[in-house]
Formats: sequence, structure tokens, C-alpha cells
Amino acid sequence: MRAALQRPSSVKAAQWASSRALSGEPTAPAMKTECPGPKSKAVMADLDSLQSMKSVQFAVDYNKSLGNYIVDADGNTMLDVFTNISSIPIGYNHPALLNAFNTPEKMATLVNRPALGVYPGQDWPQMMRDVLMSVAPKGLENGHITTMMCGSCSNENAFKMMYFKYMEKVRGGRDFTEEEMVSCMTNQAPGTPQLSILSFDGGFHGRTAAVLSCTHSKAIHKLDVPLFDWPCADFPRYKYPLEENSKENQAEDQRCLAQVEEILEARTKMGNPVVGVIVEPIQSEGGDHHGSNAWFQGLQKICAKHDIVYLMDEVQTGGGPTGKLWAHEHFDLDGAPDVVTFSKKMLTGGFYNKPELSPKLSYRIFNTWVGDPGKLILLDAVLKAIKSENLLDNTVQAGNVLLSGLKEAQTKYPGLIMNARGLGTFCAIDADTSARRDQILMDLRKEGVNCGGCGPNTIRLRPALIFEPRHAHIFLDKLNTVLGKY
Amino acid sequence: MRAALQRPSSVKAAQWASSRALSGEPTAPAMKTECPGPKSKAVMADLDSLQSMKSVQFAVDYNKSLGNYIVDADGNTMLDVFTNISSIPIGYNHPALLNAFNTPEKMATLVNRPALGVYPGQDWPQMMRDVLMSVAPKGLENGHITTMMCGSCSNENAFKMMYFKYMEKVRGGRDFTEEEMVSCMTNQAPGTPQLSILSFDGGFHGRTAAVLSCTHSKAIHKLDVPLFDWPCADFPRYKYPLEENSKENQAEDQRCLAQVEEILEARTKMGNPVVGVIVEPIQSEGGDHHGSNAWFQGLQKICAKHDIVYLMDEVQTGGGPTGKLWAHEHFDLDGAPDVVTFSKKMLTGGFYNKPELSPKLSYRIFNTWVGDPGKLILLDAVLKAIKSENLLDNTVQAGNVLLSGLKEAQTKYPGLIMNARGLGTFCAIDADTSARRDQILMDLRKEGVNCGGCGPNTIRLRPALIFEPRHAHIFLDKLNTVLGKY
Repeated sequence: MRAALQRPSSVKAAQWASSRALSGEPTAPAMKTECPGPKSKAVMADLDSLQSMKSVQFAVDYNKSLGNYIVDADGNTMLDVFTNISSIPIGYNHPALLNAFNTPEKMATLVNRPALGVYPGQDWPQMMRDVLMSVAPKGLENGHITTMMCGSCSNENAFKMMYFKYMEKVRGGRDFTEEEMVSCMTNQAPGTPQLSILSFDGGFHGRTAAVLSCTHSKAIHKLDVPLFDWPCADFPRYKYPLEENSKENQAEDQRCLAQVEEILEARTKMGNPVVGVIVEPIQSEGGDHHGSNAWFQGLQKICAKHDIVYLMDEVQTGGGPTGKLWAHEHFDLDGAPDVVTFSKKMLTGGFYNKPELSPKLSYRIFNTWVGDPGKLILLDAVLKAIKSENLLDNTVQAGNVLLSGLKEAQTKYPGLIMNARGLGTFCAIDADTSARRDQILMDLRKEGVNCGGCGPNTIRLRPALIFEPRHAHIFLDKLNTVLGKY
Repeated sequence: MRAALQRPSSVKAAQWASSRALSGEPTAPAMKTECPGPKSKAVMADLDSLQSMKSVQFAVDYNKSLGNYIVDADGNTMLDVFTNISSIPIGYNHPALLNAFNTPEKMATLVNRPALGVYPGQDWPQMMRDVLMSVAPKGLENGHITTMMCGSCSNENAFKMMYFKYMEKVRGGRDFTEEEMVSCMTNQAPGTPQLSILSFDGGFHGRTAAVLSCTHSKAIHKLDVPLFDWPCADFPRYKYPLEENSKENQAEDQRCLAQVEEILEARTKMGNPVVGVIVEPIQSEGGDHHGSNAWFQGLQKICAKHDIVYLMDEVQTGGGPTGKLWAHEHFDLDGAPDVVTFSKKMLTGGFYNKPELSPKLSYRIFNTWVGDPGKLILLDAVLKAIKSENLLDNTVQAGNVLLSGLKEAQTKYPGLIMNARGLGTFCAIDADTSARRDQILMDLRKEGVNCGGCGPNTIRLRPALIFEPRHAHIFLDKLNTVLGKY
């Protein structure tokens, strides 16, 4: 379904391996205690007195962590293939980041955080152009850009563009009516309309009310929270290996696309029309579910046909881990999605959008800060490192090693792990049960590898972009050691 | 209704005026061009090619801005009594902030931003204790603390504690049912319940869906956005001067409290019960509306009687501008509110809450970052400056000068401005019309004062905490100059 990823011919492995290696990075994991060890446990107990955050895995020594290795409070050195939920783009303590605020001007930018929608710094447009627009998704190079704080508020604000587009058409150029202006103040129609966003089973788009209404990964995220009664369609679920199941998988694509059409028609009939679609290039929290190019292309066609907004949520996939800066660029779409949201590895939240979607009036998409210029200084350093260290090429190469290794492992341990899949280092494999998945993650940590899970029984890999083939081999060795014991 | 603010007897004005003055701070505004001038306009035109942000007032030279003075791209030096929508706590380029990242450890904390809910730094609990808990609102010193990204997501997450508390009571100790777990995945009852938050006419709590449902300040914030059909009660509207209208204002308090009781009963009857109340100590965006101590106490009693959550939104009022770190501490409440949210001058979003409200299960209040430790390093510097420079005392004293001066001005120009009110430097005065308010703000800027508006016709002052009586006199002189011309 997707062209095989090739090692770029221009890259000489030895050359960039040496240029990228962080001076002093450990050469292998080294465990001194169990993890969490006594010092981590003390920190966690201390934290318990301040907040309820039982999700904490261990406490980290961020001064000692370096490159691909995270060092915990007990001095355990672990290869980190999860990188703080995929949010550490170029590893720990990269010199480019430690030196990012090396001028008084940059420090002034950091400490004088402005209300960017009212009093931006005089260098702000150029900064957005140099940093964010230099990596705009293909087809959005002349688009608009808005920074935000995180993935949730990026998606929430992007939704507003969907509503505005639809309601502009409803109004046909007339002004807001007095009735609209008054009724919206108490959340009543017609000023507060009934409009829907379509999302997908297994999707994750954040945790504030509108985006949580579009999130369908785990019940614990949603239980007891009032949400919008918005529709949820099936995201294709493929049989692996893809190359042996193309007919069934194509049928699955068609089934899912037909369902989207049905939902759009039904919602229009019930007076609560769908004004936009939000989708991840890879459903990352829900279990690393991939969609085919044909499916993403089909979805784009449906959105175009119904004149609704196609939002690609690249919060977890954006910033390089799939081997391209934007995962949807793998899909050979007909031009760009209408909106692309980002956060995590991009260090700042935000979105690119086609200019015609931007609100025509002030204060419709707005908040106090509208982002944080200090984060762009860090992102600038990240993007320069990606370029100078050839980190996308590296990610393609390391991803090839990873995926091949995962496929070998699933052949070797057929009852235990299956469905190896991935783009770049954005790889995953399923365990036979949820309990097994948790056990593998725990045993990997004992071997000095910090890895993550997603969905009910998936192991997901989210290493930094400086994760090289040699790190992939260490991971695979450890995985095989763990699996060999079952 | 509220005890008159006294100049603290322990403070010697001359002593702290000199200790606080930032070396090199301008002594007066100095305008070189109109504002926005040609350079600002060029930046704004450039910005137009990148995003739709017509709300921009002028472009700022954040390197040259200092203390209470903001310098724009054209070199205009303005006394800033609006401070980026009240979000610059101790003025521009305060040395304590410029030097905040003065150790490798602090820089490592800044650049290795963790997923705090999973892999916090080993120093994170102590950091939260030293910084945020050291200024916990009275009665929440042993409470819980959660950092967030901004005011909107602080309130959104605080709402979840309201839902959870109510649904825990409904369940009476039983586990989630299978039906709840399944139904919530598609936003259906019983897993996704019908629950309401009560908010107030004129309130502002943010712009993501749940908090925008509680925002009732301006139509343009809300138009066309699907929202929850939640109730909105009247926030008292007083006659000024307060001391001459106490009988009418007390009746207004009683009317508003009775309405809250009515709404709570009606919503319970309709099967969409109110599980919490969100209120600002001063309605800041809606027009600087104050509530009396009696009203806030009454609201607290109603919440206690109905066993629902009392959330004080201190996003704009928190961090010192009212002369106390938390504005609600002026109200002589019966213990603390159940939840206090913050952002803006606190530099990080977040909330304090009574521990019994914290979720018992993991991942119910959670996101990738759960805040940003780098912001706590800056906040630590701010809080130390507040203490060492006696900035709360200063704010009380500067506020006294401001409010007296505003009262004098409204006596001198009775048809033009009225209803002078304030706590600390968090002062406001109304103009007779919206057009007049806008004109005054424009003319103030010509005189070298950057000020803000709120509500339909209110002028709001939001200077930094380093705004001294001498700055207040400059502001008042300029205001009188402007008003004298009408």
C-alpha cells in the first residue's frame, strides 16, 4: 500500500553516525537497582503528598540523562525508546538545546513572554517564517501558521475554523444577526449552533472537552466527563503482513470510507451536520493503527466533495519520527490537508492551515499567550540539528533496522508478538494479550530499556531522532532476550 | 463591604522605592511617532501574510522594554499599565528573570521538558513545594497542586474534579460498570453523563469548549462554536460609590444568590445537575465587576449546602495585583475555595485543590506535559522578587494612589468617567460610552500610556507589581490631560 522506505543513497552511514554521536553518551544500558528503585520511590511518595499522579513510572535525573539514554534517580541508565511520550526530539541535553539561549536577545525573548495576538515582538513574524514555515507541510508553504500551547488547544482552535467555515456558508455573506449575538451569550441557538466533528474509533486528539469528544482510545480518559454527541467512524483495521492481505485490507478501506459517507448524510438529515474530520496519520495512543494511502486519499476526496475541513492531527507523528517531518506526506494526497496540527516533538503547539480558513474577524481564534516564542528558539535549534545531522535520513535507516528486527522477532516468537508495523522509527508490535504486553515492557525495563505501550496490547517505539541503527540493534537484542525467557 | 486597604505600617516608602527601581528604567513616556508607527505597521503587514491576527496593537522591541515601560518597534516608550493582558508580573527584563537560568541544572530543566505525569525530574516535588506551595492560598497549604499549560486547560481539568466528585457519589463506591465503560467511548450515557457547571453572566474562563461554555463576556468569543447548554446566573451589578448604595447593593447580592439556588434546583429536576460553580474574584474580561465579600461567602455556603465544588478562577486576579497573592483572600471566606486556578502572572497554568477532590485513578487528569518546569524556574524568581522587593505592599500603596486619583478624576469629569473601583492596582473606571472608552485608550497611547479595555465601556489597569506610586501619578497626569481635552 505504501512505497517501501529506502535508505537515501546520498547518505554514508559511517559519516553521519560519527557526526551525530553525543560526546559521552553511554554505549549500553546499565541497571543498578530495580526500577523504580528506592530513590525513585521516595520521590514518588513525596509527589503523592502534593498531587494524585499514580501514573508516574520513575523519577529522572535530567542532568545525567544524555542523548538516547535516560538516567533515573537511582542511577539506572536506560535506552529510552519512549522519550517522554514521544516529546523529546533530539535526545536529552543536546548541546544545541543547552546553548539555544546564547544571546541576551534570546534570553529576553524567553523571559518576556508576550500576548502574541496583541503585542508581538518585532521579530515574531520573521521567527515564525524562519522556524515554523521553513518546515511547513508540502502544499502549506504559503499557508497560515498559528502557535498554541499544546496539542489539545491546537485541535480545539482548529475546530473553530471548521465551525466558522460552515456558518459563513450558512450566512451567505450577511452579518451576524442580533439574535445570534444575544443567543450565543447563553449557549443557545442560533448563535450557538449544533455542529459536529467526525472522528475515528481508536483516535486520540486531546483531553479538553471538544477534543476529548473526538478521542476514543481508552475509557478512563472519558468516563464521567460531559461531552458532545458527535459521530465516531471506524478507522481501518488491517490484517498483517500487509503484502499478504491486500484484498481484505482494500475491502476494509472501502467499508470505512462508505461508513463516513453514511454518517455525513445522516448527520445532515438530523440537523447536526459534520463540518470537519479529524484524523491521525497513525492512531498513536489507540494502538498504532495505520491507514493506507488509499484510505487517507479517499477521506480527503469525501471532505472535498462535502466541502468540509480535513484536519490531520500530527501531534504525535509530526516532527520527523516517520522519516518525514510530516507523516501525512507519505500518503501522496491531492495537495495538503486543510489543517495540520502539531505539538510534542515540535515543542510548541500550533497549526498550519489553508489561508481561506483563517477567521476574518479578530478575537475569534485568540487567547492570552497564543503560544510561546521561547519554544520557537528551542525548536529552531532542533530543526537545525535535524538538518545538519541528517536526522531524517538517520530515522529512515534506524527504522529499517527496527522494523526488520521486529519482523524477525515475530517470526521467531509467533505466539507472543505479531503485526510488526511502522514508518521510520515510529514502529509498533502487538503482544498476544494485554498482560503479556505489560510484562514485556516491565522485563524490557529490567534489561535497561524504557519503552511504552498503547492500545490494549501494543508495544510502541518512540525514540528520538538521534536514535541510530546501533541503538536499534541494542533494543532488538534486549527484546529478544526478554522474549526468549517466556 | 470590604475593609479599606491600609498602607502597611511596617513599610517605609522611600526605602522600597529605591530598592525596586530598575536601573535604567525610563522616567517618563516618550513618543516619537504615532503608534502603531511605520515600523510596527510593517511588522503587522508581515504578520498578515502568516496568520489572521487583526487584534495586534503594535509590535514591541522586547530588548529595549524595561520595567514598567514597553518600547515599540518605532522606539516609542510607553508606560505600560496593561502588561500583555496582565501577564508580565515584575516588568520587562527584570534582572531576576534574565538571570533565572544561571546554572547548568536550571538550563537542563528548561530544555529537557518532561512528561511530568510519567517521568518527572527527581527534584520536581521539591520544586512544586518550594515555588507553588510556598504561595498556596490560605487553607490550601496542605492541598494538592497540579501544573497545566494555560488558564483554559487549568479550568477544563478542574472541571473534571467536579464531575468525578458527583459521579463518585452517584456510584456510592461501586466500580465502573461495563455499560459505562463502553458507552463513554462514543460519548453516550451512562458513561458520558449530563452534568452542568454553573457560571456567571460577564464571566470569562477561557476558550476551549467546556470553559468557553462558561464564558459570557463578548459574543465574538462564542459565536458559531458548539457549546454545552449550561446555566448562567447573574453576577451582582453594584451601584457606585459603594458606601452610598449599600442597601441596594445588599439587595442585589440577595437577588443573585437566590437565583443561584433556583438554578441548582431547576437543573437537578431536569436531570442535568450542577456539579460545580466557577467564578472570578473580579470579572476581569467582562468589565471589572466586583462582588462583595457577602456575595462570595453566600456562594460558598450554597456550594457547601449542595455539596458541589466551588472553583475560584484566579487566572487574571492571582499573583499579586490586588495587593494579596490571591484576590479571594480579601473575601474572608469560611476556609479556602475547593479549587483555585491560575495562569498569567503565575507564568504557568495550574490549580490548587482540596486533596479529597483529586482523582483516585491514574490518567483521569493527565496530558503529555502536565505543565512545564521551566516556567517554575521563572516563577520562583518572580516570587522571590515579590518578597525581597515588598511588591505586594508596593501594589497596595500604588493602588491607593491610583484609586484615589481615579475617584478625583471622575469627580472632575462627571459625565465622562464613573464607577472608579479596584483592589490594589487592579483598578478600573467606566466611560460613558464604548466609543468614548476607545477614544480615551487611543488618546492615552498618544500621551505614551499603554492601557487596556474590558467589557463594553471599561478602562482596566493591569500594571506589573513593580508599578509604584510615582508611576501611578504619571498615569493619572496623562489621564487628566486626555480627559481635559474633551
